Amino acid sequence: MKKLIITSLLIVLFLFPAIAQRRIVNLPDIPGYVTLKCDFHMHTVFSDGNVWPLNRVAEAYREGLDAISITDHIELTPKKDYIPVDLNAAWKISQNAAKEGNLILVHGAEITRSMPPGHLNALFLTDASTLTGDSVYNVIENAVKQGAFIQWNHPGWKSQQPDGIPRMYNIHYRLLKNGLLNGIEFGNDTEYYPLVLTFCKKYNLAVMCNSDNHGIMSETFALPEYTHRPMTLVFARERSHDSLKEAMFAGRTLAYTGDIIAGKEEYAKSFFNQCISVGKPYFENDKNIYFEITNKSDVPFFLVNGPSGAPGSITLAANRITRVVLSKKVTVPLVYDVKNVMTGENEVLKAELKY
Amino acid sequence: MKKLIITSLLIVLFLFPAIAQRRIVNLPDIPGYVTLKCDFHMHTVFSDGNVWPLNRVAEAYREGLDAISITDHIELTPKKDYIPVDLNAAWKISQNAAKEGNLILVHGAEITRSMPPGHLNALFLTDASTLTGDSVYNVIENAVKQGAFIQWNHPGWKSQQPDGIPRMYNIHYRLLKNGLLNGIEFGNDTEYYPLVLTFCKKYNLAVMCNSDNHGIMSETFALPEYTHRPMTLVFARERSHDSLKEAMFAGRTLAYTGDIIAGKEEYAKSFFNQCISVGKPYFENDKNIYFEITNKSDVPFFLVNGPSGAPGSITLAANRITRVVLSKKVTVPLVYDVKNVMTGENEVLKAELKY
Amino acid sequence: MKKLIITSLLIVLFLFPAIAQRRIVNLPDIPGYVTLKCDFHMHTVFSDGNVWPLNRVAEAYREGLDAISITDHIELTPKKDYIPVDLNAAWKISQNAAKEGNLILVHGAEITRSMPPGHLNALFLTDASTLTGDSVYNVIENAVKQGAFIQWNHPGWKSQQPDGIPRMYNIHYRLLKNGLLNGIEFGNDTEYYPLVLTFCKKYNLAVMCNSDNHGIMSETFALPEYTHRPMTLVFARERSHDSLKEAMFAGRTLAYTGDIIAGKEEYAKSFFNQCISVGKPYFENDKNIYFEITNKSDVPFFLVNGPSGAPGSITLAANRITRVVLSKKVTVPLVYDVKNVMTGENEVLKAELKY
Amino acid sequence: MKKLIITSLLIVLFLFPAIAQRRIVNLPDIPGYVTLKCDFHMHTVFSDGNVWPLNRVAEAYREGLDAISITDHIELTPKKDYIPVDLNAAWKISQNAAKEGNLILVHGAEITRSMPPGHLNALFLTDASTLTGDSVYNVIENAVKQGAFIQWNHPGWKSQQPDGIPRMYNIHYRLLKNGLLNGIEFGNDTEYYPLVLTFCKKYNLAVMCNSDNHGIMSETFALPEYTHRPMTLVFARERSHDSLKEAMFAGRTLAYTGDIIAGKEEYAKSFFNQCISVGKPYFENDKNIYFEITNKSDVPFFLVNGPSGAPGSITLAANRITRVVLSKKVTVPLVYDVKNVMTGENEVLKAELKY
Repeated sequence: MKKLIITSLLIVLFLFPAIAQRRIVNLPDIPGYVTLKCDFHMHTVFSDGNVWPLNRVAEAYREGLDAISITDHIELTPKKDYIPVDLNAAWKISQNAAKEGNLILVHGAEITRSMPPGHLNALFLTDASTLTGDSVYNVIENAVKQGAFIQWNHPGWKSQQPDGIPRMYNIHYRLLKNGLLNGIEFGNDTEYYPLVLTFCKKYNLAVMCNSDNHGIMSETFALPEYTHRPMTLVFARERSHDSLKEAMFAGRTLAYTGDIIAGKEEYAKSFFNQCISVGKPYFENDKNIYFEITNKSDVPFFLVNGPSGAPGSITLAANRITRVVLSKKVTVPLVYDVKNVMTGENEVLKAELKY
Repeated sequence: MKKLIITSLLIVLFLFPAIAQRRIVNLPDIPGYVTLKCDFHMHTVFSDGNVWPLNRVAEAYREGLDAISITDHIELTPKKDYIPVDLNAAWKISQNAAKEGNLILVHGAEITRSMPPGHLNALFLTDASTLTGDSVYNVIENAVKQGAFIQWNHPGWKSQQPDGIPRMYNIHYRLLKNGLLNGIEFGNDTEYYPLVLTFCKKYNLAVMCNSDNHGIMSETFALPEYTHRPMTLVFARERSHDSLKEAMFAGRTLAYTGDIIAGKEEYAKSFFNQCISVGKPYFENDKNIYFEITNKSDVPFFLVNGPSGAPGSITLAANRITRVVLSKKVTVPLVYDVKNVMTGENEVLKAELKY
Repeated sequence: MKKLIITSLLIVLFLFPAIAQRRIVNLPDIPGYVTLKCDFHMHTVFSDGNVWPLNRVAEAYREGLDAISITDHIELTPKKDYIPVDLNAAWKISQNAAKEGNLILVHGAEITRSMPPGHLNALFLTDASTLTGDSVYNVIENAVKQGAFIQWNHPGWKSQQPDGIPRMYNIHYRLLKNGLLNGIEFGNDTEYYPLVLTFCKKYNLAVMCNSDNHGIMSETFALPEYTHRPMTLVFARERSHDSLKEAMFAGRTLAYTGDIIAGKEEYAKSFFNQCISVGKPYFENDKNIYFEITNKSDVPFFLVNGPSGAPGSITLAANRITRVVLSKKVTVPLVYDVKNVMTGENEVLKAELKY
Repeated sequence: MKKLIITSLLIVLFLFPAIAQRRIVNLPDIPGYVTLKCDFHMHTVFSDGNVWPLNRVAEAYREGLDAISITDHIELTPKKDYIPVDLNAAWKISQNAAKEGNLILVHGAEITRSMPPGHLNALFLTDASTLTGDSVYNVIENAVKQGAFIQWNHPGWKSQQPDGIPRMYNIHYRLLKNGLLNGIEFGNDTEYYPLVLTFCKKYNLAVMCNSDNHGIMSETFALPEYTHRPMTLVFARERSHDSLKEAMFAGRTLAYTGDIIAGKEEYAKSFFNQCISVGKPYFENDKNIYFEITNKSDVPFFLVNGPSGAPGSITLAANRITRVVLSKKVTVPLVYDVKNVMTGENEVLKAELKY
């Protein structure tokens, strides 16, 4: 006989992010589109971050992301006594590593002003060094001439909005009117702003969600509190830089932060339906039928407000199969509120379990 | 803004086995068959185990198994001063819970004799109480009359074979000749016996692998050393008691213990091919091409003895995507030995990576 | 050079409870007494539990406890069709293992009646088989004649008190008056009842806290939610059966459940003071002084309601050193409420940090 | 009743290194000295590291270290196109944070030459910018004029010694002879070099052990493989910069890497004796006596080669109590080899268990 001695790698890789293999993120594609896992907001030593740009590529690679943008601040460069300002540095340094790592690298920068308009990321740039000047409007216009997607960052950030509530000011309306605003962060770091859903639906903008990380990703978003960094899920025609860009301008996104999925109902519903499958009843007795719901995704779903006689709430844990025991007296459709799938400031997805 | 407060369930469920949801075990089906995850050997307080039978059902349910058999010893009942001998007790107590939990419960018992023939499990019984008597041959014959599948347990167990090497004795040949032996444990608890593969291939028996647990499953097979209990993978036409039985008599099984998969080449190859997929090259430069291999399973695969110029070894971590950087000078097929997929006592699977 | 290959055992033992070594529980002694970590309430297959008695000894050993009592129900024996009733069985089976494991085993049983008086544990019995009869008062009297300590269990258990609020009935007052009630469970399983502190202080009873476990301890109280089972901390003259008994009758106890310590102020204060030490300032600048607080215990302490100008709250994480940065303008004593050290239904410990 | 809702911090802090509290490292003081936990070798973006200097302070703070030195390469500055060379930058940037964090910051730099003499750290510098010039001997002399302690780094590093075996060359002997070499790394990153113990004992040098980290400490030395970064334990008269320096020049150190403690027997023995305590027998029967050994440290100890009749090997797991069952027939002293406490290239500590 032999004793088992091969160490299992599952746990090693789960806890030890340095090993150069990619995690498989279980966030399914939706009909017609591939689901790209993206983070469009992070910093390096070239502004007020604490890591070298290649770390951002390595982190994203290991975490199984499809696309990132390094978005150092244009106007905030506190390390300039040691590191001369170079607004394209992170892009230049990271480009090749991203290619070798099968990651889509989006050239970006963060326009960093007081509120209004606050901070805005310009994504899909060709040259970030030109985004300087007194007039933030002109700077944004300049970015858009380069083809940029303009994202309004953390609109409810307490340093700029002490009550935490996002507000649109004249300049935001002016940007909107002239097609110079394309998305807003619903989620940023460990915060999220429900009101952003109202803005995005009203003005048909992309719902965005990003880490805005300045430190070490694996230290900021770590077990047991976090299983993943905040992400923007982009529904693209294919996994390419240009398809990603097209999808973002078309607003085909969802925010994914903590256990929350948020965005337009159309995408939320489609995504939820790909995550779960309801099995046929496998057993019954005098009183009840038994069936199982499989959640093949990394997102747990919290179903609440079930119909009378049915379980009031059902938790569909991530990557788990959940058993439902249902009274035979229940004849109405099994419609639940999915508490953590937000489709509006005060709305959540309604889902029917068809067994 | 709001701070994230929903606790992620992923980690809770991973570490906290008491929550009543099933794990999704990533062990894919193979063409033509569903892969049933089974454990046909465990004990309760009705012999020398330390738990009540319902615990065995609950453990298997949470761990995502498809079928179990509780196989208390016929001849070893050390708790009989407190618990009267009832050889069908575990079966009677567990039946209903198994139905409610969508688990296939196989009625079993362990015939427990000194070597030879050692210990043998009789699976798919109708009444274990009849399996007593001096002649072990008669007892086995009796079991087979009930339709039983006979599994020889831990043939290299040091308590019965001090050198740890399995040996077939006259009685084993007699059982074989009369169709009274159907499978042998390659894996038992944390041990495994490579020579069993030789026996199984020669006599066309099912390769078996089981926990033989007497205590608490989650304590015995726990992180970081173990990610799962030992299992027999059975390739059945469908997920049912009768299909399971048919598949076992047909020998369509693989052993899965620690990181080792072992069994007949036909099933090992088919299973491996369903676990991994090799992507098209996504990048190349002057010297190298880059492609990715996705391992969608819970089993890591350790590829060694690569061709000259290619990476000598490649670890395909479980549930991970592995990048391969290949010199453009390599023109031969990428054939590797899969070190932890055993197809014989001294043979492992050969696999070609077709990118 | 050599590569490190010795696996560190720290994590193995932390997560893998089966290895037969004891955890060191960091709950300090207090001046004059040793702190015994105890659990006086748990079940086995001899009533409605699911494990064999020896498991209870093994669990307590590994978890570093000093004393346990197995307290199977007198009147609730749902497994009696398979296991004949024997009210002393767990005690007989466990005695020797406890001695070999350096564990104090207290002979106990649970008198199990509807409310009032509800469930009561009789601890330090000589023969549990005599505790039967219609009159619960007579049964308790009988136990006390054996020298028993009587503990009222889970007085706010919703199955017996639907609003969750403990209430004392005539029979409780009668027991009290005749010296037949010695302690009440503040904590039971994952619940706790603040009002018990009022009862215990008023009638000078021991504040108790126990697991009441029926299943697997390591599955019920597991990371990340729990780092330990509920315990009664008993302050005894020495680590012996008789000293333990003396201390319990004298009411020298604290409850420890989750992150909560609860009991009489005298013991809570003494215990807290042994857990933490405040260092001298190690640095100062124009505005602030810097000092460190070391928490050598497994209990985190949550300090709130700090004086004006000082940090409003300070978390002294378990087994950690916490830095305090204090404005030089603060001249008042640093008195805080220790939110998780309860000394009354609505009172918590006040503690001064003397740096 | 209330349900427990306070999340325990123990696990949070254990796994989530970003929270600003210090770990208590259980490595006891020895008689006459405090044990300082140190790492004298690490890099930042100012040479070939990937993090900003403040990260090094934050990491060390959280991990509970007492002293660190940031030792960017003098001659290897691959980021100079983006970051102008400033050999004192890490020191200037980190100084204040170290003071606020109660960390001893040692001003250091790595002299980086081909072998011989290889790489050497100069510690306790006043100005690293002067350590340039063709002659490495002159550079070292210059450092020593500043009061520096000279440490020879990773002498068996395969990039400079392909067979992994450290070798002393003429220049090393010349440095030794002139008092310009004070310590050698036994451990570096995940490697260690047993032969260094021979060198250190022969020439009375300090045995050193450091991380040499270029990336993220928490990612490089992470569970389940590592519980801590490599450290040099320095036995100082008090916890201060000057006492640290005195102790290092006096050679009062041990290396601590993985589960290995290595160094001069005098310190190894004293340290081991502070880590463990052997209790009096608590139980005996006809055949055996039972006693417990408490290991209050983070280091597991692997005792092997026990005397005849006693347990052949005993593992004293870290922060655990281990039971020993000893036959009454054993009358000889219980002397063991402590396999993981190396006192020479081929020697380990011998320890007697006096119960």
